[in-house]
Amino acid sequence: MKKIFPLLFTGSIITSFAFSYTAGDENKVSASDNDSTVFSKIYSEGYSSWGAYNDLKGLCEKAPKRLSGSHGAQVAVEYMQQVMKDLQFDRVWLQPCMVPHWERGAPETAQIIDANGKTKYNVHIAALGGSLATADNGLTAEIIEVKSFDDLDKLGKKGVEGKIVFFNHPFDDKKIATFASYGEAVAYRWQGPPSAEKYGAVGCIVRSVTSSIDTLPHTGVMRSDSLAAKIPSAAISTKDAQFLHGLLAVETGLKFHLKMNCKWYAEEKSYNVIGEILGTEHPEQIIVVGGHLDAWDLGEGAHDDGAGVTGAVEAVRIFKALGIHPKHTIRCVCFMNEENGGRGGKAYADSASLKKEKQIAAIESDAGGFTPRGFGLDMNADVKKKVQVWAPLFLPYGIYDFSHDGGGADIGPLKTLNVPMLGLEPDGSRYFDHHHASNDTFSNVNRRELQSGAASMAAMIYLIDKYGL
Amino acid sequence: MKKIFPLLFTGSIITSFAFSYTAGDENKVSASDNDSTVFSKIYSEGYSSWGAYNDLKGLCEKAPKRLSGSHGAQVAVEYMQQVMKDLQFDRVWLQPCMVPHWERGAPETAQIIDANGKTKYNVHIAALGGSLATADNGLTAEIIEVKSFDDLDKLGKKGVEGKIVFFNHPFDDKKIATFASYGEAVAYRWQGPPSAEKYGAVGCIVRSVTSSIDTLPHTGVMRSDSLAAKIPSAAISTKDAQFLHGLLAVETGLKFHLKMNCKWYAEEKSYNVIGEILGTEHPEQIIVVGGHLDAWDLGEGAHDDGAGVTGAVEAVRIFKALGIHPKHTIRCVCFMNEENGGRGGKAYADSASLKKEKQIAAIESDAGGFTPRGFGLDMNADVKKKVQVWAPLFLPYGIYDFSHDGGGADIGPLKTLNVPMLGLEPDGSRYFDHHHASNDTFSNVNRRELQSGAASMAAMIYLIDKYGL
Repeated sequence: MKKIFPLLFTGSIITSFAFSYTAGDENKVSASDNDSTVFSKIYSEGYSSWGAYNDLKGLCEKAPKRLSGSHGAQVAVEYMQQVMKDLQFDRVWLQPCMVPHWERGAPETAQIIDANGKTKYNVHIAALGGSLATADNGLTAEIIEVKSFDDLDKLGKKGVEGKIVFFNHPFDDKKIATFASYGEAVAYRWQGPPSAEKYGAVGCIVRSVTSSIDTLPHTGVMRSDSLAAKIPSAAISTKDAQFLHGLLAVETGLKFHLKMNCKWYAEEKSYNVIGEILGTEHPEQIIVVGGHLDAWDLGEGAHDDGAGVTGAVEAVRIFKALGIHPKHTIRCVCFMNEENGGRGGKAYADSASLKKEKQIAAIESDAGGFTPRGFGLDMNADVKKKVQVWAPLFLPYGIYDFSHDGGGADIGPLKTLNVPMLGLEPDGSRYFDHHHASNDTFSNVNRRELQSGAASMAAMIYLIDKYGL
Repeated sequence: MKKIFPLLFTGSIITSFAFSYTAGDENKVSASDNDSTVFSKIYSEGYSSWGAYNDLKGLCEKAPKRLSGSHGAQVAVEYMQQVMKDLQFDRVWLQPCMVPHWERGAPETAQIIDANGKTKYNVHIAALGGSLATADNGLTAEIIEVKSFDDLDKLGKKGVEGKIVFFNHPFDDKKIATFASYGEAVAYRWQGPPSAEKYGAVGCIVRSVTSSIDTLPHTGVMRSDSLAAKIPSAAISTKDAQFLHGLLAVETGLKFHLKMNCKWYAEEKSYNVIGEILGTEHPEQIIVVGGHLDAWDLGEGAHDDGAGVTGAVEAVRIFKALGIHPKHTIRCVCFMNEENGGRGGKAYADSASLKKEKQIAAIESDAGGFTPRGFGLDMNADVKKKVQVWAPLFLPYGIYDFSHDGGGADIGPLKTLNVPMLGLEPDGSRYFDHHHASNDTFSNVNRRELQSGAASMAAMIYLIDKYGL
């Protein structure tokens, strides 16, 4: 026994960080606690149990690749279902939805080739989500750079036909709100390929939409409706985009070679994973908290949006751990297919509508597991004021900003049901460094930052449950 | 030419991230700009030039090891002097001070040994700053664990004599303010060794003072005045501390083997590195901004406190870049020896006092290059109110908290001259994960977060210069 003990012990400390911090009964919420005391207990629980962090570790290990329709997505569904069952939520179930199924396939390659065909530079690219493949031997064509749609229009068919268009529109670092910079630049990822195809381009390369200057391509969805481009389209890393930009400034006749074998498959059946604890007074009235379970396939989807789903589960777990018995039902939803279809969000809202469920509020976390700063509010002005009155309770925990509009893509369809919507707003400094890229990994998540977001959602749910909206 | 161009070009893009964002004359501050507009230009400049980030990269590459008195510290002095000269500050000079000189020496090793002397577990330790070495063949003794000074007192001489004391006092994760948790736990690093020695301990092991559960020892200064311990003393990583704790719970007679050859040397002459731009109306009145240039020797001192010195230089550079001609002199001070002596801070205040310099405010950055949240204020209540009136200008940039006391260790000695003092307050979530450990590296600094802190200091200096304090 003694001989094998150290090994067993080593195992046990790996999964249990909190040997000396286990929350005991003294941390339970009692009826006499005022809101400030409850907040203190909520954050203490978040900062000592590390539930979201441990769940996220498991998710990123077991299902790092979980784009809709993939095997990994199904593993992720089963994992989160089990997490909520293990936490003994009152009800846990799967809500079906059909999802698109696109896969990247084998490794993609790309090269810049000089005019005489001799010098070749390997560059880092990744197919945009939804792109068609190249031919088996790849696609090679002259490459031309544009910085904007206006530039493209000026070139017109004469300048574009038969070529690969390189959209080199930089992320505007000067904006304090990185999400605003993203919103502006991502238009080229979405609309660049069909716009280039319209003028006869045979391929499209889009500068990665990121605040980072690195060698990582950042993928993401391109337009995939009936106006989708049929030409192979890829994101190129920002460093390679700068390199290509420099080459194009001094060399003529540069070609680009692209080889990708991504593919569309038939739609698959998938699921939102839902768990809830029932309200004591109004179990039929629901407060929703969620994020999305699917993720782009280059990294592990840790910040986008493993942090959201595990943070939402953690918010509900904190209620249970502290012995808070909410008046209303608190429901955690791990939405499927946010990244390339939004089917889960739609299925959830359709079901709520069909069942005439009363959803009194919906909170979404889909901006990374970074240190939280506030909540965006999408609700009428009177309700907004009610939330803003609570701000002083949050201030000691660094949550000060309730000034922006906001909600989220997955809870968005609930808007038609007039559900007040809130979006957790973490600090945006680092989000786009990792967004849709291979470095969106668990190792780049800080446990205090992640837990602070989860606790902030629990605290918000606590107030909504207690005072209504 | 064409043949070699790509190589040259590759080189040039590595050092110049900002090919498309170079600030032009349109970003210069004009007399008609209101404060809000000037703030916008300051932050834009910070987010497009990346001055602090590039300087920090250079500092961490050229002088990653720069504990006071070391060769690296001298390299760092010369580097920061050159940085300020290259930026064409009006005056750049070195201010001498004598500093203690302690070095870690060759790699340190430690093992836990079971009672029969057969099973040995390697653990991660690092000598505490100022510790004496073990004998050449190391130190081996029975190890006993205590969680607090009270525990130690209860054991007394009988329980401690001849043994190695293991202080296993955890970092209190439940506090929202990590600096408060640090302040509480660091008492064991500072006072643990002499307290153990008082009862006859022959060595001392202190649980690393960090929010992270990892295998990295986090060093730091131990008491080194006339009451300093003479017994070898080291920090142990938190994972190893947990492992040792578990072993001690079930095994008796465990020994600890420690081998370190750290050493004290004679004091060395070193320097504060100072640069300034002269005021147009009151050049004799000085606004100080600074951080400390020395750093612990395990990592690169990126957050602690390369971020502070390069951020302070960047704040001054932003003034020059925007064409802001301050009324008062803006002086950047890279203080020497904050970590294990504070000689630079004292030398600076002594000089200011001797020369009867009028220092109208001092700002220190020594809490890491993380996303800023506010400024701590150490000044009388009326002056504090004046600063707090400016809060709305900062709010759009995420700087909302002016509620704490604060200043800094290096500007602290200016308190006797009644200088109003401000401390930049970044988010503290990640600081102690890296603090005094081998992972305090440039790669763990985010450029937007770092630049935001530098810009915030520039903005604060702008207001102090314009409105006074």
